Amino acid sequence: MRYSVFAGGKRLRPALCAAGYSVYHEDYTAVLPIASAIEMAHTYSLIHDDLPSMDDDDFRRGIPSCHREFGEAMAILAGDALLTLAFETVAACRNFPPDKLARAAAELAHALGTQGGMIAGQVLDLQAEGRSLEPQTLEAIHGAKTGALLTASVSLGAYLGGAGQEELEMIRAYGRKVGLAFQIVDDLLDESDSKDRERRKATYPGLFGVERSRRLARELSEQARDAVQPLGKQGRLLMEISAFLETRVR
Amino acid sequence: MRYSVFAGGKRLRPALCAAGYSVYHEDYTAVLPIASAIEMAHTYSLIHDDLPSMDDDDFRRGIPSCHREFGEAMAILAGDALLTLAFETVAACRNFPPDKLARAAAELAHALGTQGGMIAGQVLDLQAEGRSLEPQTLEAIHGAKTGALLTASVSLGAYLGGAGQEELEMIRAYGRKVGLAFQIVDDLLDESDSKDRERRKATYPGLFGVERSRRLARELSEQARDAVQPLGKQGRLLMEISAFLETRVR
Repeated sequence: MRYSVFAGGKRLRPALCAAGYSVYHEDYTAVLPIASAIEMAHTYSLIHDDLPSMDDDDFRRGIPSCHREFGEAMAILAGDALLTLAFETVAACRNFPPDKLARAAAELAHALGTQGGMIAGQVLDLQAEGRSLEPQTLEAIHGAKTGALLTASVSLGAYLGGAGQEELEMIRAYGRKVGLAFQIVDDLLDESDSKDRERRKATYPGLFGVERSRRLARELSEQARDAVQPLGKQGRLLMEISAFLETRVR
Repeated sequence: MRYSVFAGGKRLRPALCAAGYSVYHEDYTAVLPIASAIEMAHTYSLIHDDLPSMDDDDFRRGIPSCHREFGEAMAILAGDALLTLAFETVAACRNFPPDKLARAAAELAHALGTQGGMIAGQVLDLQAEGRSLEPQTLEAIHGAKTGALLTASVSLGAYLGGAGQEELEMIRAYGRKVGLAFQIVDDLLDESDSKDRERRKATYPGLFGVERSRRLARELSEQARDAVQPLGKQGRLLMEISAFLETRVR
């Protein structure tokens, strides 16, 4: 669990969670347990994704993947345990009233689940391998596989920070745009990944080409910033995260 | 997910949950979503346990195990999804106040986790294979691997039913005794399982012999009933479950 969680990574999801919270409180320390729980859930998905029967990846974040280091059985259990600990961390967090935590745990579970959430995306992705896809199908896969958790990250932060319904909708729209932009950027940076091409994984550059994908990522980032423009200075961290994503494809 | 959840089984954990709740409310319908979530979490553990890199079992509940039917990748995801859905079901249940649900979700996660919970037991069990064990170690393995969730099942039902701290302690003591008795009975019924013997899995009959294990299971069942004796007639279902366990080894 520690080996994989502390292997580095961009920490985009916890950053989004802290940024959502920071719209309402300058000091985002209180939301860090929730942000950490989200990163644990993300790491669980990476560990299971890398398993031989799934993507069969030997490396992750620059070091041997969990199952290469500790064996398959222990990697499955480490992933299971991180998912479990993520829920325990949210449900038992002392920084927020328990009724808000129950709703937060439900939203996290939904984003990770089979109804438009991460596992739905994984299943669609496995089924799509080697097939040619419609753009809408690709968007649906990405929206579920990575978009739902990215959106939940920022939305959970904002909800626990005290966002009202209307602002929560704005921030969710931001999350959806940023999430898709992030995925396109990731696809672009992975263009050289011969494994994805070999398995004919569904990617944006594969479908639209590199130039159009870049343009799309930039447009989505702008739309994300537009969505939270009404928040003014309070949305500063949200703006910065979206700008950071753009720098990655320049 | 459906294939494995609806493959039958004794439903001992949901029965314990309903029995715990029924101490306070004759009609236990309200707690059934929680009881179902517990069974989903249990089923997730069976699916992952059966995987080739874990116990490598081809059959479960009389039909091909999940990975034999749907492949390893889908079985890993089905397990992941059941665990996730278990937490969503608890956290989003409308039959109880959200603050109680947060505590319930935290207790469930703890029972499934690495601090004396199910995954701790799995890891200890994997590490113990092929070694000779002290009785205390065997009890620690069983206490974590199956005992924690069995205890949480009855304790969650009682807590959501409205048990006070003192009664909750009684009911947890009952859960621990019943949990261990159940595991010994299961070991006894599995005595013929050549696979367990071949892998030198840690079992009670293996350590104490059949006769002493039977006696121990009976004693524990009696102790369980003694623990909830003060509840009187309201503890009827708890008594019946413990008596049922005894009939399995007669």
